[in-house]
Amino acid sequence: MAKKKDILKRQFKKHKKVGKAPGTITYMGHREATETKVTIIEYTEDLHKIHYPGEIEQIVAHKDTPTTSWVNIVGLSDESFIEKVGKHFGLNALILEDIVNTQQRPKIDEYEDYIFGTFRMLYINDDNELIGEHVALVVMQNCVLVFQELDYDVFNGVRDRINAKSGRIRTKNSDYLFFALLDSIIDNYFIVLENVGHKIESLEEELYENPTPEVAKQIQQLKKEVLKIRQWIYPVKELVNRLIDSESPLMSKDTKFFLRDALDHSYEINESLQIYREMAMSLMEMYMSNMSNRMNEVMKVLTIMSSIFIPLTFIAGIYGMNFVHMPELQWENGYFMVWGLMVVIFIGLLIFFKKKDWI
Amino acid sequence: MAKKKDILKRQFKKHKKVGKAPGTITYMGHREATETKVTIIEYTEDLHKIHYPGEIEQIVAHKDTPTTSWVNIVGLSDESFIEKVGKHFGLNALILEDIVNTQQRPKIDEYEDYIFGTFRMLYINDDNELIGEHVALVVMQNCVLVFQELDYDVFNGVRDRINAKSGRIRTKNSDYLFFALLDSIIDNYFIVLENVGHKIESLEEELYENPTPEVAKQIQQLKKEVLKIRQWIYPVKELVNRLIDSESPLMSKDTKFFLRDALDHSYEINESLQIYREMAMSLMEMYMSNMSNRMNEVMKVLTIMSSIFIPLTFIAGIYGMNFVHMPELQWENGYFMVWGLMVVIFIGLLIFFKKKDWI
Amino acid sequence: MAKKKDILKRQFKKHKKVGKAPGTITYMGHREATETKVTIIEYTEDLHKIHYPGEIEQIVAHKDTPTTSWVNIVGLSDESFIEKVGKHFGLNALILEDIVNTQQRPKIDEYEDYIFGTFRMLYINDDNELIGEHVALVVMQNCVLVFQELDYDVFNGVRDRINAKSGRIRTKNSDYLFFALLDSIIDNYFIVLENVGHKIESLEEELYENPTPEVAKQIQQLKKEVLKIRQWIYPVKELVNRLIDSESPLMSKDTKFFLRDALDHSYEINESLQIYREMAMSLMEMYMSNMSNRMNEVMKVLTIMSSIFIPLTFIAGIYGMNFVHMPELQWENGYFMVWGLMVVIFIGLLIFFKKKDWI
Amino acid sequence: MAKKKDILKRQFKKHKKVGKAPGTITYMGHREATETKVTIIEYTEDLHKIHYPGEIEQIVAHKDTPTTSWVNIVGLSDESFIEKVGKHFGLNALILEDIVNTQQRPKIDEYEDYIFGTFRMLYINDDNELIGEHVALVVMQNCVLVFQELDYDVFNGVRDRINAKSGRIRTKNSDYLFFALLDSIIDNYFIVLENVGHKIESLEEELYENPTPEVAKQIQQLKKEVLKIRQWIYPVKELVNRLIDSESPLMSKDTKFFLRDALDHSYEINESLQIYREMAMSLMEMYMSNMSNRMNEVMKVLTIMSSIFIPLTFIAGIYGMNFVHMPELQWENGYFMVWGLMVVIFIGLLIFFKKKDWI
Amino acid sequence: MAKKKDILKRQFKKHKKVGKAPGTITYMGHREATETKVTIIEYTEDLHKIHYPGEIEQIVAHKDTPTTSWVNIVGLSDESFIEKVGKHFGLNALILEDIVNTQQRPKIDEYEDYIFGTFRMLYINDDNELIGEHVALVVMQNCVLVFQELDYDVFNGVRDRINAKSGRIRTKNSDYLFFALLDSIIDNYFIVLENVGHKIESLEEELYENPTPEVAKQIQQLKKEVLKIRQWIYPVKELVNRLIDSESPLMSKDTKFFLRDALDHSYEINESLQIYREMAMSLMEMYMSNMSNRMNEVMKVLTIMSSIFIPLTFIAGIYGMNFVHMPELQWENGYFMVWGLMVVIFIGLLIFFKKKDWI
Repeated sequence: MAKKKDILKRQFKKHKKVGKAPGTITYMGHREATETKVTIIEYTEDLHKIHYPGEIEQIVAHKDTPTTSWVNIVGLSDESFIEKVGKHFGLNALILEDIVNTQQRPKIDEYEDYIFGTFRMLYINDDNELIGEHVALVVMQNCVLVFQELDYDVFNGVRDRINAKSGRIRTKNSDYLFFALLDSIIDNYFIVLENVGHKIESLEEELYENPTPEVAKQIQQLKKEVLKIRQWIYPVKELVNRLIDSESPLMSKDTKFFLRDALDHSYEINESLQIYREMAMSLMEMYMSNMSNRMNEVMKVLTIMSSIFIPLTFIAGIYGMNFVHMPELQWENGYFMVWGLMVVIFIGLLIFFKKKDWI
Repeated sequence: MAKKKDILKRQFKKHKKVGKAPGTITYMGHREATETKVTIIEYTEDLHKIHYPGEIEQIVAHKDTPTTSWVNIVGLSDESFIEKVGKHFGLNALILEDIVNTQQRPKIDEYEDYIFGTFRMLYINDDNELIGEHVALVVMQNCVLVFQELDYDVFNGVRDRINAKSGRIRTKNSDYLFFALLDSIIDNYFIVLENVGHKIESLEEELYENPTPEVAKQIQQLKKEVLKIRQWIYPVKELVNRLIDSESPLMSKDTKFFLRDALDHSYEINESLQIYREMAMSLMEMYMSNMSNRMNEVMKVLTIMSSIFIPLTFIAGIYGMNFVHMPELQWENGYFMVWGLMVVIFIGLLIFFKKKDWI
Repeated sequence: MAKKKDILKRQFKKHKKVGKAPGTITYMGHREATETKVTIIEYTEDLHKIHYPGEIEQIVAHKDTPTTSWVNIVGLSDESFIEKVGKHFGLNALILEDIVNTQQRPKIDEYEDYIFGTFRMLYINDDNELIGEHVALVVMQNCVLVFQELDYDVFNGVRDRINAKSGRIRTKNSDYLFFALLDSIIDNYFIVLENVGHKIESLEEELYENPTPEVAKQIQQLKKEVLKIRQWIYPVKELVNRLIDSESPLMSKDTKFFLRDALDHSYEINESLQIYREMAMSLMEMYMSNMSNRMNEVMKVLTIMSSIFIPLTFIAGIYGMNFVHMPELQWENGYFMVWGLMVVIFIGLLIFFKKKDWI
Repeated sequence: MAKKKDILKRQFKKHKKVGKAPGTITYMGHREATETKVTIIEYTEDLHKIHYPGEIEQIVAHKDTPTTSWVNIVGLSDESFIEKVGKHFGLNALILEDIVNTQQRPKIDEYEDYIFGTFRMLYINDDNELIGEHVALVVMQNCVLVFQELDYDVFNGVRDRINAKSGRIRTKNSDYLFFALLDSIIDNYFIVLENVGHKIESLEEELYENPTPEVAKQIQQLKKEVLKIRQWIYPVKELVNRLIDSESPLMSKDTKFFLRDALDHSYEINESLQIYREMAMSLMEMYMSNMSNRMNEVMKVLTIMSSIFIPLTFIAGIYGMNFVHMPELQWENGYFMVWGLMVVIFIGLLIFFKKKDWI
Repeated sequence: MAKKKDILKRQFKKHKKVGKAPGTITYMGHREATETKVTIIEYTEDLHKIHYPGEIEQIVAHKDTPTTSWVNIVGLSDESFIEKVGKHFGLNALILEDIVNTQQRPKIDEYEDYIFGTFRMLYINDDNELIGEHVALVVMQNCVLVFQELDYDVFNGVRDRINAKSGRIRTKNSDYLFFALLDSIIDNYFIVLENVGHKIESLEEELYENPTPEVAKQIQQLKKEVLKIRQWIYPVKELVNRLIDSESPLMSKDTKFFLRDALDHSYEINESLQIYREMAMSLMEMYMSNMSNRMNEVMKVLTIMSSIFIPLTFIAGIYGMNFVHMPELQWENGYFMVWGLMVVIFIGLLIFFKKKDWI
């Protein structure tokens, strides 16, 4: 629970920067400072090398090689390093600001020499928690820069395909690599949605079996999670669409063809999210109807018990009175006649409640 | 019930494919592997033949004949067969992926030589369950390829018309055949909507007669079903509209004229679905109001019984006290006077409740 | 009530036609087959004749006369007759299908020689029920064909004006006649809306006076009726707008001027309908709040009666105990002191409840 | 209250006209016939005269003078007089129909020689009721015709400014006069909104202090009022926008500049109205939550009283039994020990309820 | 609380002006008249001076200097002073009206020589209250006029950057200064949103721990606050967008680049606000569900206590009757057998309630 609250809070840490000049590179993450790790995957159809460069110059060297390079930079807390990378690759200061701003909403900006995009990688971690990690991509003529905060990402499938030379990726250029990474991000949205679907289903079951206030809390938690996911996922379809319409020479007609497929998936995700949203909203309604049912049941028990025994107790009370002149008390069978009366009333009331379908 | 959940879950099986390269042909269905069955209906105005080809070459032969051929392919689990068909007919890899992706949302893609479309065939099966089957259509110059998962489909009316030479179909080309198939799919949406309408009506009746929690569950189930149907049906009107605006030479002006009629039906279906959606949402509201009514009734019984007998019991209690000096106890008619008092109170309270309209 | 359900069901009878070829003329109404009655009103500024033609040729003769003719055809179940009319007047098969499809949603189609439109005539019949009758209009150079199911329509005002030569109608052409008929249909929408308004008001009153579950049912019924009316009325404003923008030579600039007035009314009707919709939705909310009020009142009575008499009964119970050593029982005034105590408690509780504003 | 219902009903009196030819001048108001009063304010920068013309010719004389004239016509029930005015000023018949149609929704129509507009003057009368009066304006080259039903209007500020020569009005032409009148109408919308705001606040207070069903009724009344105001105010911003975009030579560039200011106010009013709408909708929610609170409180009292005294009464009942062999009854201190037990139970239950925070 | 109501009321004080000519400069604030204080910050890359001019001529002198000047005017109640400033700087009368209209909604107007904008500075004051202060900006070739009501503003970060020569601001022109001020305003919106987020979280916690009616009140208060914030913040993104599309020579291409960053933030703020809005709406739902839970708990206690002790009391009542012939009373162990029976019933009912999961 505590962690989820963190996720929700992260978004508004922005005020750390309030008052600073725009374009100031300020790490907005909530992680402790970690060393920045750089990995470069360099490939052509026939070549596949992995570099672990130590110096900035070793990284920049990949900018203008004819091979395709995937420069993967993990750890965003070292602002001066990011600045150096930016300077050597010729990136705009505002973009550097967005790279280290881990609360940046998804966006795509086109520049003359490169296209910049940030997205949210969503995945379910080992504790079954939803994690939303900031990732920034810069696609250039011959390389793609990937900036991320943690060592964990959703790109292993792409790495495997490059390694195994499966699919088209080794025969294609940096724009296809960019597409492949984006496609991985979007594919993971399906898993996250599926997880939401499972949560809805299990909440629904618990709702009928054991509708404690805890369930209501969890429903609210789920609704917040769906709101959050929507905020992260919603802009993507528009961004992909803009890429398809882009006139940048960096995006080849061929890659745009694949992007159209990704666009399709984005629409599908948004539709499913919309359905889950409505389902999540129904859950509370069901919870309330269930509460109402339970209340009804409680009230019926109370009403039946009271309505039966209060009148009977009254009769017993009558013959507990101490009047000197109470003829019935002297009757030989008075006691048994009263019992008879009571049984008649008892059965009569049972029939009455049966007719009302209360028992 | 179990089956319905399956329908809802099916949509998110996509992650089977997560990490695979786009354009990979992966069967996404949930059926056991079955043999692929191919049937070809070949016709012109004067000719009508049905073929059951065994070899891929026999199928492809129909691509360039002057006759119109409906190539019907049942069973999508044999990925290599689908790939072969795709190769021989010159279909794009991404399209093959969509053909075997049984969770694909409805879409239409135009290519130079063919138009590709996937839709959802909705029908009510013999167990009165809603079934949503994936169907993919490829219309070419002289033939229409139809890919479906099961042997059951909604196209028998079209088969009969071709067979009986009724209507225009035998005089028209492959684009009209495509329209006729699409029209059949859309016509079946009306039946599905009608079924939803019946369910709403019967739930409404049960709501008043026997509002158990089970009814609330069924209302929620219905709301999910309507959400699902909307997801399947909603995109259709836009797709048909796009076909009408298409400049592809495959769609003749004449067929577009008929498509306009189909568009009309799509609008009508969407409007009706919207109405059913609002009705379904009202159902829960009615359920709650009914719960509230029942609670009111229960409380009235409790209140009337308690309010009448508790005071009377109190009076009986008074004269059950054992004080040595209680003058009333000695009175000759004390007992009967107390009875009188009780009857007066009883009648007084009855009048009070009658005035409040509680009895 | 039964009849209203029929109205709602009618819409989905379409599946009678499922499987048939598009353009098949199939009567979709729910009336018994009746003879088709044709009346022709022929007029110019100086002429006014009413014909009751027996033969199709007598009808078609009016197509090319310089006079304006209103060909009124009542009864749509004789499909072959409609087909003959269509053939002689040169109407498209799809239009004939729409003419006999009494569930057709409002639409306007422009052709070279004629404009086709179908609408819903709404009126309140003598049993105060809402009736929605299908009407189809075809406007040609010199005549307007009107197809309707029943002998009753909303066009008597137009007939009177033609007869009495009042207004402009006799000096104008067939397009103005078309406008006059459409205007009559729209004017009747105001009456139907007024009727909805009255129902809302009377339900509101009943809600406060006598909030039985029956009232909740009627509120739901009203909400459905409003949904239905909206479905019938909503498309009209767009259709009129399209007519105004039409470039068909059949619509004169002068008539478009009047259509703009009709458009204005359509907007007004839609706004009012929207308001009624929101009012109808509020009704249920008021019903629930009223239920809640009543429950509160019931609970107060129960609580007051129980809270007063249960403690008093307890005191009486104390002195009904049979302990050998109970000093109070021997006191001379014990009995009266207990009475005193009870009165004090009684008054104290009354004051308590008075302070809580419960009595 | 009665009057408010009238306001809501007025809108649907239109059917008085159903069946009449369009362009028929029919007074739609609900006032008794009154004499029509005409006042003309004629001014230039140096001139200021008020006329009370008796003859139609005296009115028409102002059409073509070089001075600016404000022709104010009060009382719309004399249809023939309005018709005469229309004829002399060259107004279209449909416009005359709109002038006397007191239910006309706000609209602006541009003609070659004049611009016609109708609006709703909203104000709070002396009984603190919302009044919505129909007003029609016709702006011509040198004069503005103002048609209204009652002698009361919201234009006194404009009259004062003309009289006192304050602001620009005396130096400007008829289009500025039109703007000034429209601006007055819009300014009064602010007062009406403020009144709505006050009502919401006082309902909110009453909700907490004294949530009777009467309050619920008033909330519903308020919601209807807001719906009504929205219907009257909402179209204005679009109309003003259209005037600004108009190419009519009657609207000078200078006046359009001021209209932009009026447009700004229209937007502000619409936003505020939207906020009030949501607040009004919240009121019912608060009412329900308050009801629920009160119910809770009632139930707590009942539960505490019953849970404490029912067990105690049971104990008393035990020792009221008449068994021959009941050892406790013989004990010297039995009675006091029972009292002790009862006090222990009493205190125990009090602690229990205290812990539950119920007391 | 009182202050917040003031905030909500402020908006509708406009009617002070009703009837006045448009363009009349009328202070609309609610502050007492205060002296107007003017501060001028003059800077170039190498220069930085702060002036406190006493005469209007000293202020106007800065209009045409080559340096960039920030003319900060605090206090809007001296209408004649504002008018003088406006006259010397050549500002339009309508703009002056907007400057002193402290209820003006956010807007941007472009003129030939200057661009005018008003916004709302939002901040949380020391009493943790939300304050929304009106601020008006006029950007000219070489200076920016800032009009505000109070000495407190959100621009200290900008002042510091000018002073410390940090960032780009000293090297840039007046349009960048304008951007920097706008950016400060927008940055503060994040803080305000964060504050809303904290309030939602603490209300949520209190909802579960201590759901008093006071909490419901605070939820409503929060919802109003969110509505208010939305009204102030919502138009900003459109205004910034308009500035970016502006063709005014005052906005350099370079500054537009930064404005795009501000636009991004505006979108982010609007999305977050939307999320908070939905969360705030959920709060009431949770409150109601919690109320319902508590009611359920209360009812369970009542039902258990009553259902157990009412039957037992009945049994005791039976043997408290005074019939002469009651065989059980004579039994040696009658009393103990009754106790046994009671214990059996007691345990039986406990098991029954346990099974129902009520205890």
